[in-house]
Amino acid sequence: MVRAMNDVELFSPLRWEQGALALIDQLRLPGDEVWIHCRTEDEVHNAIRTMIVRGAPAIGCAAAYGVAIAARRLADEQPSREQFADRLEAACQMLATARPTAVNLFWALDQMRAAAKQALEQTEPTRSLAEVADALLAKAKAIHSDDIEMCRDIGRHGGDLIADGATVLTHCNAGALATGGYGTALGVLRAAREAGKRIQVIADETRPYLQGARLTAWELSREGFDVTVIPDSAAAALMANGAIGCCVVGADRIAANGDVANKIGTYGAALAAREAGIPFYVAAPTSTIDLDTASGRDIPIEERGGDEVLLIGTKQIAPDGAKARYPAFDITPAKLVTAIITDRGVIEAPYPESLRKIMTRSDHPGE
Amino acid sequence: MVRAMNDVELFSPLRWEQGALALIDQLRLPGDEVWIHCRTEDEVHNAIRTMIVRGAPAIGCAAAYGVAIAARRLADEQPSREQFADRLEAACQMLATARPTAVNLFWALDQMRAAAKQALEQTEPTRSLAEVADALLAKAKAIHSDDIEMCRDIGRHGGDLIADGATVLTHCNAGALATGGYGTALGVLRAAREAGKRIQVIADETRPYLQGARLTAWELSREGFDVTVIPDSAAAALMANGAIGCCVVGADRIAANGDVANKIGTYGAALAAREAGIPFYVAAPTSTIDLDTASGRDIPIEERGGDEVLLIGTKQIAPDGAKARYPAFDITPAKLVTAIITDRGVIEAPYPESLRKIMTRSDHPGE
Repeated sequence: MVRAMNDVELFSPLRWEQGALALIDQLRLPGDEVWIHCRTEDEVHNAIRTMIVRGAPAIGCAAAYGVAIAARRLADEQPSREQFADRLEAACQMLATARPTAVNLFWALDQMRAAAKQALEQTEPTRSLAEVADALLAKAKAIHSDDIEMCRDIGRHGGDLIADGATVLTHCNAGALATGGYGTALGVLRAAREAGKRIQVIADETRPYLQGARLTAWELSREGFDVTVIPDSAAAALMANGAIGCCVVGADRIAANGDVANKIGTYGAALAAREAGIPFYVAAPTSTIDLDTASGRDIPIEERGGDEVLLIGTKQIAPDGAKARYPAFDITPAKLVTAIITDRGVIEAPYPESLRKIMTRSDHPGE
Repeated sequence: MVRAMNDVELFSPLRWEQGALALIDQLRLPGDEVWIHCRTEDEVHNAIRTMIVRGAPAIGCAAAYGVAIAARRLADEQPSREQFADRLEAACQMLATARPTAVNLFWALDQMRAAAKQALEQTEPTRSLAEVADALLAKAKAIHSDDIEMCRDIGRHGGDLIADGATVLTHCNAGALATGGYGTALGVLRAAREAGKRIQVIADETRPYLQGARLTAWELSREGFDVTVIPDSAAAALMANGAIGCCVVGADRIAANGDVANKIGTYGAALAAREAGIPFYVAAPTSTIDLDTASGRDIPIEERGGDEVLLIGTKQIAPDGAKARYPAFDITPAKLVTAIITDRGVIEAPYPESLRKIMTRSDHPGE
């Protein structure tokens, strides 16, 4: 069922174009649809760090292409195979510093490391470094297309959880823009809609970057979804008032005990959902699950600069000298998560068991 | 202990100047400190509606001055006493439509109606309408100075609840700008600081109007408070992480059962405070308590225009055609409120009893 990459409808925020990674500049959406081209791994690192590309799965895909770009450049320098391996590892380590919270970045780099090792260790002695670089580009493209496929699978599993006529709250952007394409949380909504269900979407605007107002509203409204933007602080009241049927959000990392790191504000929405008796679903590919991280306490939370709160564009909103904090993610304890929708199926508590089980399963049911 | 109006330190967002109500334009803070002058009751109505003046107690004070302005104009028209009374009532009704949620508006108008009735019913037949208008201006000034005095009393009672070295979260602006002066929630912080306590303040930025980033940060930082602005959605995580010792917020209306209407986002903060085991205090003058409203369900919640979410200044943040909702207030159920700090003392649950008791008490303890 590999229809993802050649599906004309599918939007992806990443493209491989003429030896470069093309990224839609998510800082300029929805006003301007501008594609920037990364031709070095440093440019990829910078694009991730500055959030030109963001969203845990999309960051993973971008980093994989970054390794492929590094491999091509290194191969052109005609080093020894050992030098090539060392320099590629240095590039991986550099890319790993771009952002700390989303585990998909590290997952994708590990995938690329393994692919490099395999390609370098090919028994055939004539396999050139150029061929190794080709193999790594192929691997990056595979990570990208697999990510889209995982999103489709998430949608297929999660779409069943959404009732016809439901009003669904989502936070930040866990959509096509946050992934290889199709989206995780928004993939669930797309799949429900493709199954003929009528859905209304409430998008938390998601300060300070406004991923909800800018990105979720953009990608859903261009497909004809009924989407309404609200201030983040309005979500709890709308849940209490019965205006929201369920919540679906993405994740940047899911710890072994089921704690979920996701965009700041997710935790508050989950608290309000529990209080209102509303299901709170987390949708994420298995590449977001990190069994090596025991609990949410062990997930590093990125603190971004206070300027990102105090400035809207170039306009200063607070008085001179005001301080600000912007922890970019928060931890939603597993107890607040009704179910985790993965590409391998929907799992529920107790998460230590269900997560371990789903991660050790080699088959993909229903495929 | 009437030191409020002649306290050189005290900032008030309202001034009576040369027959007009001067208001600091709260839409232009903190960038510009501009005073606008309302010379008709329509201008006062407009200033309340457009949030040039906002905050439940400040709205009450402004409306009272609006009635005084109307009385002066009507007296100048030399109508009969009956015509005067009818037209003044029409002005009161017009002012009452400015905003629906804060009860202080209606409370202040009722105070002015009673003062007008009393002045018109003076037994001395020679009491002119000009003198009635004088009496109403005096009453408006008294409402204003009483409001400041109530804030001082709130501070005196509430300041004891704040620990030395505490980090206190506040939402929206319940400060000098929201009142006749000194503030309710921020009055508590001012009083604690005046008592020598060291306090750090975390100000929710309070989208979409950014009263926290713009107004709370402005009025606290100009007094040397240590204040840090955060996105509203970060409050829950900071509470969970132990970074916040208690919450103090204002109120737009407190129902007879203790449910609190306040700026949207208050409810979510209260949920997070309960989850973290942090005290959640509501500070409000007794003019905010409405025993005629049984519960939060009976408080009308103002829905402001979606444009207030979709535009920041004149910059559009969402794609063309996006919809938005902005319920301006939410209801925090009484069960989430640790205590209500009033000018007559601090009360706790069960609120139906404690609110009724404090509202029927004629004396002010400790004065």
